[in-house]
Amino acid sequence: MYKLYDFLPSGNCYKVRLLLNQLAIEYTRINIDILNKESRTPEFLKINPNGRTPVLCHDDKYLAESNAILWYLATHTRFLPKDQYEQAQVLQWMFFEQYSHEPNIATPRYWVSILKAENEYKEQLKDKMKAGYAALDVMEQHLVSNDFFVANQYTIADIALYAYTHVADEGDFDLSGYSRIKDWFRRVESQDHYISINKSK
Amino acid sequence: MYKLYDFLPSGNCYKVRLLLNQLAIEYTRINIDILNKESRTPEFLKINPNGRTPVLCHDDKYLAESNAILWYLATHTRFLPKDQYEQAQVLQWMFFEQYSHEPNIATPRYWVSILKAENEYKEQLKDKMKAGYAALDVMEQHLVSNDFFVANQYTIADIALYAYTHVADEGDFDLSGYSRIKDWFRRVESQDHYISINKSK
Repeated sequence: MYKLYDFLPSGNCYKVRLLLNQLAIEYTRINIDILNKESRTPEFLKINPNGRTPVLCHDDKYLAESNAILWYLATHTRFLPKDQYEQAQVLQWMFFEQYSHEPNIATPRYWVSILKAENEYKEQLKDKMKAGYAALDVMEQHLVSNDFFVANQYTIADIALYAYTHVADEGDFDLSGYSRIKDWFRRVESQDHYISINKSK
Repeated sequence: MYKLYDFLPSGNCYKVRLLLNQLAIEYTRINIDILNKESRTPEFLKINPNGRTPVLCHDDKYLAESNAILWYLATHTRFLPKDQYEQAQVLQWMFFEQYSHEPNIATPRYWVSILKAENEYKEQLKDKMKAGYAALDVMEQHLVSNDFFVANQYTIADIALYAYTHVADEGDFDLSGYSRIKDWFRRVESQDHYISINKSK
């Protein structure tokens, strides 16, 4: 029995919805409107004291952090290689995503397209954009000689990186110079049971 | 044959040195002075295109991201539980560390104690301190009913969180109100083959 505490516009939540769909796992979706501070209520903080979505509940056990949830669901499936070094490479890219990519690419999208407060964050946006383009450069370079991020196969590393990269334009990033990334978008989008962001099925 | 590309004052590098020591793995240490931009040279960028330390080299294979390296080294050892959910909890705390903790607790230390540029970063420090204390609050609360972060045993989740928490005072954090965290410091420091930061043995 799976439950997902989920906010539809969130790329971090989308990662989990996409994998659940690709694994054909049925789940109950519980909407948490973070704009309405529903991830900071006393009830929600009991589930995740860090006050963030997504949270997965499986057999009454809770798990937070999108990439930890991906790992939990993908273990022993085709979405995670079996080799120890390849598994570590998957984690390397997922930590890259949460440290160097998501704070710089998801945050501008949140400010620009979700809060619609571009002017208020003008100064901070400059630094974020610079660091965000640096992360995109690292991805583009890797994709020159790789179809996917690890082990030449579609894994949860691709899911983690795809979630916010493919909507980076909603944070005013210009992807026109990133042809390898755009080719990789098409490879991800052609996977079985792909669903788009904002969709739960 | 293990090589570690390492910067002694870095808490992220320290995590790996501590675990290597506790696993009694011999390695060659290669000093990368990030203050001298040695992690951004063309040679280093071939090893890690993201230009960060630590990087582990094992049998000519490279791996970046401190927590991915911890996972790689800890697999099938006592530092990582075997249960799938407990493994995912270890990752949950390690992603919490890289997203909610390290950027807010390590960065002030870097500005204040390593660059000695506290005045230059005065404004940014305010936001970092607020988010850093929020992360410390989450840890303190968890340690009210847990001796360690996962499975009631010392794991790589503790190593990942200990690295920058125990030197948070070097970024002007006041830990005097965090008695559970300070008790946990003592439990970490009493582990076999513990070494302190700035030490390689």
